[in-house]
Amino acid sequence: MALVNMFVRNCWYVAAWSHEVAGQLFSRTLLGEPICFFRDSVGKVVALADRCAHRGAPLSKGRIEGDSVRCMYHGMKFASNGQCQEIPGQDRIPPQACVQSYPVIERDSWIWIWMGVPAKADAAQIPPTWSLGSPEWPYKPGYYRYAAPHMLICDNLLDFSHLGYVHPTTLGGTENIAQRRPTVTRGDAVVRVERWLTNEVPAPFHTKVASFSGLVDRWHFYDFHVPGLLVMHSGVQATGTGAPEGNIKNALEFRSCQAVTPESESSSHYFFAVPRNFAIADQSITDRLFQDVVDAFEEDKVMIEAQARNLERAGKWTMAAIVADAALSQFRWLMSQALQKDAMTEATARS
Amino acid sequence: MALVNMFVRNCWYVAAWSHEVAGQLFSRTLLGEPICFFRDSVGKVVALADRCAHRGAPLSKGRIEGDSVRCMYHGMKFASNGQCQEIPGQDRIPPQACVQSYPVIERDSWIWIWMGVPAKADAAQIPPTWSLGSPEWPYKPGYYRYAAPHMLICDNLLDFSHLGYVHPTTLGGTENIAQRRPTVTRGDAVVRVERWLTNEVPAPFHTKVASFSGLVDRWHFYDFHVPGLLVMHSGVQATGTGAPEGNIKNALEFRSCQAVTPESESSSHYFFAVPRNFAIADQSITDRLFQDVVDAFEEDKVMIEAQARNLERAGKWTMAAIVADAALSQFRWLMSQALQKDAMTEATARS
Amino acid sequence: MALVNMFVRNCWYVAAWSHEVAGQLFSRTLLGEPICFFRDSVGKVVALADRCAHRGAPLSKGRIEGDSVRCMYHGMKFASNGQCQEIPGQDRIPPQACVQSYPVIERDSWIWIWMGVPAKADAAQIPPTWSLGSPEWPYKPGYYRYAAPHMLICDNLLDFSHLGYVHPTTLGGTENIAQRRPTVTRGDAVVRVERWLTNEVPAPFHTKVASFSGLVDRWHFYDFHVPGLLVMHSGVQATGTGAPEGNIKNALEFRSCQAVTPESESSSHYFFAVPRNFAIADQSITDRLFQDVVDAFEEDKVMIEAQARNLERAGKWTMAAIVADAALSQFRWLMSQALQKDAMTEATARS
Repeated sequence: MALVNMFVRNCWYVAAWSHEVAGQLFSRTLLGEPICFFRDSVGKVVALADRCAHRGAPLSKGRIEGDSVRCMYHGMKFASNGQCQEIPGQDRIPPQACVQSYPVIERDSWIWIWMGVPAKADAAQIPPTWSLGSPEWPYKPGYYRYAAPHMLICDNLLDFSHLGYVHPTTLGGTENIAQRRPTVTRGDAVVRVERWLTNEVPAPFHTKVASFSGLVDRWHFYDFHVPGLLVMHSGVQATGTGAPEGNIKNALEFRSCQAVTPESESSSHYFFAVPRNFAIADQSITDRLFQDVVDAFEEDKVMIEAQARNLERAGKWTMAAIVADAALSQFRWLMSQALQKDAMTEATARS
Repeated sequence: MALVNMFVRNCWYVAAWSHEVAGQLFSRTLLGEPICFFRDSVGKVVALADRCAHRGAPLSKGRIEGDSVRCMYHGMKFASNGQCQEIPGQDRIPPQACVQSYPVIERDSWIWIWMGVPAKADAAQIPPTWSLGSPEWPYKPGYYRYAAPHMLICDNLLDFSHLGYVHPTTLGGTENIAQRRPTVTRGDAVVRVERWLTNEVPAPFHTKVASFSGLVDRWHFYDFHVPGLLVMHSGVQATGTGAPEGNIKNALEFRSCQAVTPESESSSHYFFAVPRNFAIADQSITDRLFQDVVDAFEEDKVMIEAQARNLERAGKWTMAAIVADAALSQFRWLMSQALQKDAMTEATARS
Repeated sequence: MALVNMFVRNCWYVAAWSHEVAGQLFSRTLLGEPICFFRDSVGKVVALADRCAHRGAPLSKGRIEGDSVRCMYHGMKFASNGQCQEIPGQDRIPPQACVQSYPVIERDSWIWIWMGVPAKADAAQIPPTWSLGSPEWPYKPGYYRYAAPHMLICDNLLDFSHLGYVHPTTLGGTENIAQRRPTVTRGDAVVRVERWLTNEVPAPFHTKVASFSGLVDRWHFYDFHVPGLLVMHSGVQATGTGAPEGNIKNALEFRSCQAVTPESESSSHYFFAVPRNFAIADQSITDRLFQDVVDAFEEDKVMIEAQARNLERAGKWTMAAIVADAALSQFRWLMSQALQKDAMTEATARS
């Protein structure tokens, strides 16, 4: 499998929520590769190829021994750097008896993995997701496995004109969203999308957790980073509270982080959370917001998976571009650039 | 996908029963293509490619608006001829923003679709299925999805020598059917099959709805039309009622219509009904006959799907022809001719 | 499908337990070929290709008639040698109207099949499995269908160093097994593996059916025959009962027979039994031992199927050989020799 060209590898991907890698071995397939995660004796997350060097059995069916993992098929033991430390019944450890070890960073409740050239892994490249780690911004973590390619989920997140159509009774509430063009700006590895919506009725999502006496102004400002991370500032406030653009007062604010990571060519992992700045001690609000978000994201999932099934058998059919595609077109361009850069990085590393 | 050469396209296929396309959007895959059906404001059936021109989302998850359908992913609206009428947030409608529209005819409770060159669609080519539309011939409509190629189901319907073996306790009743050769005649796009069976015990199917004091004569006369439509006149009468061939008196008569439409290379739709001319006001007879037919057709389905699984992995294995294959051999020849004619029609339309 | 090169064909495979082919038609896919088994009028097992010569319907959905089977699709009847005996409605039987018949031997409760050149089938090549047929060695027959290639199951059986890791609470009991190298000897079509384990605690498997006051000596002596048959002498006795090697006294002895037969490239049949020489009249011991074995073999199945899924997507990844692979490496070499010999046998048969 020439996976190298299918996925951008030299970048950070969200691999798991922190709580998913607890005291047990945890397996997840990323970019077509099965990975075994565990915490070493001081709690640091280790990521190894989930395929024993010996006969290919999954290490995730093995046993954690201190900072190492033992394959429970024939007993080979591997250190956190992937080196084999023990082969039952023999003294010499052949050099090829090792498994790949992946750089891992745990930050703000997310576990990030670098699946490209290890020497290129730079923690500074991880975008800021502070709202996931702040006690002032409560949330409940969410995860979906998608039977759809990573890019179709990114497309969805890059064009909120779908809110009024896919989410009329949940997040959206009004089809006017699609009439209001966002400002789209492209950076080096990020697309910035900014949309204000003024003099509108609040969304069903808002009215469940707050009461507004009249119309509201709403906004979605977000950065969408290569290879699939949304970091958003959104909110709602009573109309007339302040200047319509850029001026936020007494608002309900949300700082959503959402990450999309390919599982395979045709399936994906989707990690999401919607931290908020109000009623921060009220667990029932946390639970209700989570359920609302899940209800809405389930609507996306139904649509995107149906779209994926359609595209899978669409043959030579091509999409017709419209104005609303601005942000996703920019992002797809960034991704093609990243793939090219990736090929050079891999070639240099091998030479 | 080069579906053009896989299926005959320039012909009418049964797409659905009339009652299946009611007030809602209805999706069915035909010849490998997902199709969205709905009724416009005056009840006329519309068939559009079930793939929005924008990002490929299924229109069948959309919303009917008068004579149009709106995609509920990003809000594009399409007329019944496939033209895009509205793109939220922009005024110009690019010409490629359209979906394919298919000619449709609704007749005698069946919805027919033409998936070839639209200009070639001629309603006069639809074979007569009047028994499905006559109040004098009651029936209950049947449908199966088959995990088998369309041609294997046609084969089955073209050789009733299977009745005694597959349906000994339902439709058949006697293995003598296979001993009696039918008359087979080939027309331009139809194979005619005629079989009389005289001095026989009635089939279980018959004795459940009528009583015969002695032996009976039975007949199956049918036209089997390209690309997969059976229109049959069959019946049973007391032996000695009249001349054995062509002379039908005081008989239980059935005018069955059965249509086979490819869903994909390896799966099919099967529409069936067995209208009768007796006890026409008795709903309990309608229900009992339907159940008998379903029991029997389930026997076919089990055999044909097992045959399909066998053939799928049979590699270079070839079938051995026997005399009973006469009708199906003629039909396969007609289909190969139709495929050739189809290729010319498509080529001419493109030039 | 060029199955010829994928599997060794000119050898005996276990196809079924005797009790599986009772009064009914029985279908099982072996080496990618569907086979129909039945007993003729004197109880002799017949094996025919499970694909009617006419349209490919499965004969296993047919009807046994004396020494013959009738296809219940269109009524063709086949003798136990595969010759067609009857075609309803026609007198001439064309020579190609036959199905392949396979040599079959029933011995010691196993039904063996030869899927290569029929003239080469020699019953003397079936290895001895007398413990399956002896009233002095009771057992309960076991069968699993594996979603894993045949060779991965053979690998497992050829390296018992896995006992301490995969089966710590069932068959194994101690990881010391992997520290003790077996003696491995290669014959013409067999690998012999002999391992003694002395001064050990008994395995959980042993303590459930017997009590030992102190440490024990354990042994596994087995022949592993091409293409996938294990015939084992294993046992346990109190330490100090005799000389550690080759001297067995007052022991609990087991004479296990286990056979692996490919179903397809990626799936297998696994037949197993563990006959014993103690408490031979006690059915409760038979049942308990069977359950213990099933619990343990389920542990293998989970590991091997996970390994198979891993290898399926491993691309160019290669296994790292270790000392414990000695027996399985020898066996894989024997198999490659057998495949080469097979190609010559098939070529000669065709010339």
